[in-house]
Parts: sequence; C-alpha cells; structure tokens
Amino acid sequence: MPTLPLREALRQGRAVRARFGGFRYIRFKDDFQGVPRGTVVAPGGMVWGYPHIGRLLSLEAGLEEHFAGPFQAEEKIDGYNVRIARLGGRPVALTRGGLVCPFTTDRLPDLLPTAIFDAEPERVVCGEVAGPDNPYLEASPPWIGADVALYVFDLMRINRPGFEPRADKHAAVERYDLPAVPFRGRFRPDEAGRAGLRAVSEEVEAAGGEGLVLKEEERPDKRVKYVTGGANIADIAVAAGNMADLPADYYTDRVQRLVLYLMDHGRERTAELDRELGRAFLDGLEEAVRQFRRERHVSRVYRCRFRERANAEAFRRHLAALSDAGVQTRILGLEPEGKDGYWVLRFERIAPRITGILGHLFSGGVFYDP
Amino acid sequence: MPTLPLREALRQGRAVRARFGGFRYIRFKDDFQGVPRGTVVAPGGMVWGYPHIGRLLSLEAGLEEHFAGPFQAEEKIDGYNVRIARLGGRPVALTRGGLVCPFTTDRLPDLLPTAIFDAEPERVVCGEVAGPDNPYLEASPPWIGADVALYVFDLMRINRPGFEPRADKHAAVERYDLPAVPFRGRFRPDEAGRAGLRAVSEEVEAAGGEGLVLKEEERPDKRVKYVTGGANIADIAVAAGNMADLPADYYTDRVQRLVLYLMDHGRERTAELDRELGRAFLDGLEEAVRQFRRERHVSRVYRCRFRERANAEAFRRHLAALSDAGVQTRILGLEPEGKDGYWVLRFERIAPRITGILGHLFSGGVFYDP
Repeated sequence: MPTLPLREALRQGRAVRARFGGFRYIRFKDDFQGVPRGTVVAPGGMVWGYPHIGRLLSLEAGLEEHFAGPFQAEEKIDGYNVRIARLGGRPVALTRGGLVCPFTTDRLPDLLPTAIFDAEPERVVCGEVAGPDNPYLEASPPWIGADVALYVFDLMRINRPGFEPRADKHAAVERYDLPAVPFRGRFRPDEAGRAGLRAVSEEVEAAGGEGLVLKEEERPDKRVKYVTGGANIADIAVAAGNMADLPADYYTDRVQRLVLYLMDHGRERTAELDRELGRAFLDGLEEAVRQFRRERHVSRVYRCRFRERANAEAFRRHLAALSDAGVQTRILGLEPEGKDGYWVLRFERIAPRITGILGHLFSGGVFYDP
Repeated sequence: MPTLPLREALRQGRAVRARFGGFRYIRFKDDFQGVPRGTVVAPGGMVWGYPHIGRLLSLEAGLEEHFAGPFQAEEKIDGYNVRIARLGGRPVALTRGGLVCPFTTDRLPDLLPTAIFDAEPERVVCGEVAGPDNPYLEASPPWIGADVALYVFDLMRINRPGFEPRADKHAAVERYDLPAVPFRGRFRPDEAGRAGLRAVSEEVEAAGGEGLVLKEEERPDKRVKYVTGGANIADIAVAAGNMADLPADYYTDRVQRLVLYLMDHGRERTAELDRELGRAFLDGLEEAVRQFRRERHVSRVYRCRFRERANAEAFRRHLAALSDAGVQTRILGLEPEGKDGYWVLRFERIAPRITGILGHLFSGGVFYDP
C-alpha cells in the first residue's frame, strides 16, 4: 500500500472526516497528490476513487487511436456510480465522491448477493445503481419499471489502486452470481470493429440505453465511453425543466455530441429527429412554468424505498443538512409500504434559480442582460 | 455638466485613452461612479453611454407593473447600437463600448443626412445599424437585402445624460429626414394594450423581425424591450455553429424566453415549432463540422463596404490588432467594387474553441467531463 498524503490532505481540507452511524472514515474531496477524488480511508482499509473514463465522440477518428488490441463492449447504464466494500465490519456503498450512501447501503441485500464480502473481504464491487426510485437522478433506463437495480462493471481491491483483471471479474460474477452489466460483444479497433460497434450502438439506442463502455482486454485501465445520439436527447429532455439551475453547457455539450454521433454514423438528419430535439427542450420547460403557476415553485419529486426505518431517518437527516446548506429539499412523507416491512421516503428538491426567475417574472419584473 | 470622475477612472483603468486618426478621446470601459460604460469624453464634448434596456418576458405580468400611462411601441432592429455625434469637427459613430467604429463612421453619409450635425451640432443620434454587410454580426433583418441601413430610435445631447423628449425626436426626424425605426402603435398598460401588443408582436414575428421596444410617453427613460418567440429561434440558428465559443447560456436563455413567449401568447406548441427549434440547433453545427472537414477550421466570413480606402485600411489594422490579442481574424481581400468608388473588405473570424475541439476529436482524442 503506497504511503498516503493523508495528514497534508486533511490539513488543506482536500480530505475530510465523515461518519455513517458508528463507522468513521476519511474521504478525499478532490484529487490530491496522486490520490483520486472519492478515495476513502477507514479502519477496515482504503478504497481508491473510481477514475473518470474518457469520452469518445467519433469511432471513425478515435478507435484505432485509443486501442492497441481487442476490446470488450459493455452497456453503459444511466445511474450513479457506487463502490461497494466491507469496511468497518459491514458492506457499505460509497458514492463517487466517497460518501457512504445510506440509501444504497440499506439496499445492498436487494442489489447483490453480499456473500461475496464474507468469502472475499478484500473485494470492491464497482457498479451503477439505476432505476426510477433512486434519490439522486431523474433519469432511469426505461426497462427498469420500479425501484432500483445494480449493474456491476468492475472489481477493485481494498488498499490497491486500479482494476482487477478481467478474468477475475468474470470468475467472481459467475461464482457469486453478481448482476453484471450486459456484455455487448468483443471487437477489434479496425473498420469491421467500427461497423460492429455502430450496429450495437444503434441497438442500444433503440432500446433507450445510454451507450457503451469499451475496455481493452490486455490493459484493463484502457477504456472509453461512447454514448448514443438518443441518450443526448433524453438527457436534455429529463433536465429541461432545470435549465436555469444546471450549468448551461450541460445542454449545449449534448447538442454538440448529438451532431457528432449522427455524423459519425453517417446518418442523415430527419424532420422527426429535429422535432425530438425541440420537444426535449420545450416539454420540460413548459411543465416547469405550469408547475410554478400552480405551486409557486419548480421542483422534482423523488421517492425511494428503505429496508430499515433507521436508514430512512438517516437519509432524511442528510437531506435536512443539505437544506440548511442551501439545497432546498422538502420531506413529503416517510411511510411503511406493503407487507415486506419497507419504508418509502418521498421528498422534493426545489430548483432555486428557475423558481426565482419565474417569481420575478410573474411579479412583473424585467430582466437585464449581463 | 456634472463633474466627471475622469482622473480616477483613468487611474483605475476603467476609462482608457483611444484615438481615431487625429481624433483623440477617452472612453469608459465599465460603469464607474455613475458614469455608464461607453461614455466618451473628447475635446468636442462628452457623449453619455447608451443605457441598457430591461427585457419584459411576460406582457401579462409585467406591462401594468412597468408603465403608469400610455406608451409607444417601436420595432426593435437586430443590429448593433451606435451613437452618432459631431466630435472633433466631424460626425463619428460610437459603438456601445465607446469606440469610434471606422466602418460606421465611414458610411455615415450613406446612413443618414449628416446635415443635422451642421445645423444642430449638439445632437447625438442613437440608432441601430443592421444588414448583411456589417462587420460585427452574422444576423440581419431578412428585409435588408444587401449592405447596411440605420434605424434611428433616440436623440441624446452632447454633455447631457438621458434622452431628449419624444416631441424633439419626432421633430428632428421630420426636419432632417432621419431614418426612424418603424412605429408600431400607441398602447395603454391594460388588457386592450396587451392584446394589441400581442397582435403587433405576431406581425413583427411573421415578418422575421426581432421584437418591440416600448417607451412610456411621459417618462422617456421608462422603457422595456419585448422580443418575439421566433427571434429566439433565429438567434439560436445563426449562432449554432459557434456553440463552443459563445457562453452556453446564450442558447439556454433563448430557449427559456421562447417558452415564456409562447405561454404569454397562450399559443399551443406545434410539431412544426419543435422541429424549427431542433433544426436551429443542428443545421449550423452540422455545417460547422463539414467546414472543419474541408478547411480544418470553423469560421464565419464577413464583408463590408467602405467609401474610403483609408477607412478600410484602418479597419484592417483594427482587425490585425485583434488577431494579435487572440481573436483570430484573417483578411480575405480588399478590393474596389463597382463604379461608385467603394471598397469591399472581406475577412473571416475563426471560432477557436470549436476548431480546437474538432481538431482534438478528428485526431482521435477523447474528452473528459469536468
């Protein structure tokens, strides 16, 4: 295990202490002297941050540039990244930023067979949690009808940077019946590979999927993501009502990627596609204005299910702390559901800027260009 | 004339010295202690900066809030703002930022009867210069087939802040045959006024115009602008190829204004409108990528006509200075045109960020999200 610049990172505020119940840990809020953001240090060991994956915008130009040999394509799932590891005597789920997520941690027994951590306690399971009943994201793959699901795509190891070899991952997926992301084929970085990837990408797009992650077989750290054109439109649609609150280049980046995807696929634009893009922008915004007229604010409602009431309460306190810090959330309810003993937390997040803009506007205000 | 904080503004770099040929002046680069940005101080006198006009996004909510009595609607022209005044013995055209524009100044005899400055040398004529052959803007009102035209909307007076009374403006327009912006009617801030304005706004929109500026009759400084839905789409279309180079909220602001305009007009969205918005985003971007593939850069070509070769040369030097400062422009030609002795300057402006992004992309690069 490399020596960590832990004391210095803490001193500079680049790493901070945190706790989840009785479990105390330190997380790196930023990249610091070679330690990636999201790295967690705890008595049970250290979990390295999950690295960013570069985005390929053109198979035509970038595939041969990036890969020296065969690579595998996995489906990219639109959710939030977690690393799951046994720390402090129990499996916990860490967010990208290195916080223990009370919701995901609560639901681990529903998301994967946690027996893997009893048998191989040094494992770190990396995956995406997605589904309509998640507390973070509005978007959800269309085939997940309710609740959330885990899609495993990598293994790491406690106290060690980098990914475990592909063979180890496949063996663990088999042995412990882990829910792996869909495998979408093996390709080479040549013309046939590009054609194959384009066909797979169009399949993924037609099913409402987000795209692919391509991983070179020989070098597990060599990987890129490739997102479908349709996913860009879907991202715009889902976030349109938030337009004043997200960075504006969230939208323009996706429009640009859409154009590059179409051109990379040699696909002609159609009136239908133009219409879809326009609708993506306008539907959500119109709904936001309508909501403001009804409720005097613009918000999104989230719901998520917990196994244990105590975890739901912890999540509620977490939201209350965020509210005190300026992120406006409002708890709508915490109630038992069904016979299985689950608890459903419902809350809404206010979009403060568009709420403020519409408030100014509907009280007759004028706007000055910067 | 109020005392100016001139020395202090110069010391802090908020005002700077400039020259145009032998004419020397000082311009305020920023608002400073009550003096607006664009204010010019010269031996012949001082010209105050043109104030910003607030934007009304909803007639329903804002009209009665803003106006206490009848107001006049003038058409808003999509061009660049100039103040024309006799300074240093000759009429010069000042940009919004207070620079003498060599192009506009050269063309003043074509733009308005300059006799007004001989008869009333204290006059400042404020207007918009628009048309396809202008050196600043890609956009141009569709009815101006070639060259540029001036649309006068206000009079100011040398050494005096604020606008001249409406009656004085109308009298001067009559007397000197000034090219005034189209008058679009007189309204009251009530329900009938809103209905009338909506009808006029739809007419302006159908003709490809930008919108209206509303000015209260009794208080000449009380004014707002109101832009049509279609103008927002046109703005997006004309700038789509520049998407990486303009601030991203240029685009998102216009999408939001479009939605508010439609709702303010009680207009149902149509598939055709959705399609227009999508097309506005995608046409220009596709063309930018095509241009990059042909020429290895993305640029816009401008042309403008000068009466005097010396002014064209001055403008060329101005562009060269900009290039040295990082704004990449390239002169394509300076040639005499027709029998009238005009000179045509052609140049292109490179869009550096999209050029860089496409260069990285087509050489196989990947992109990391921030």
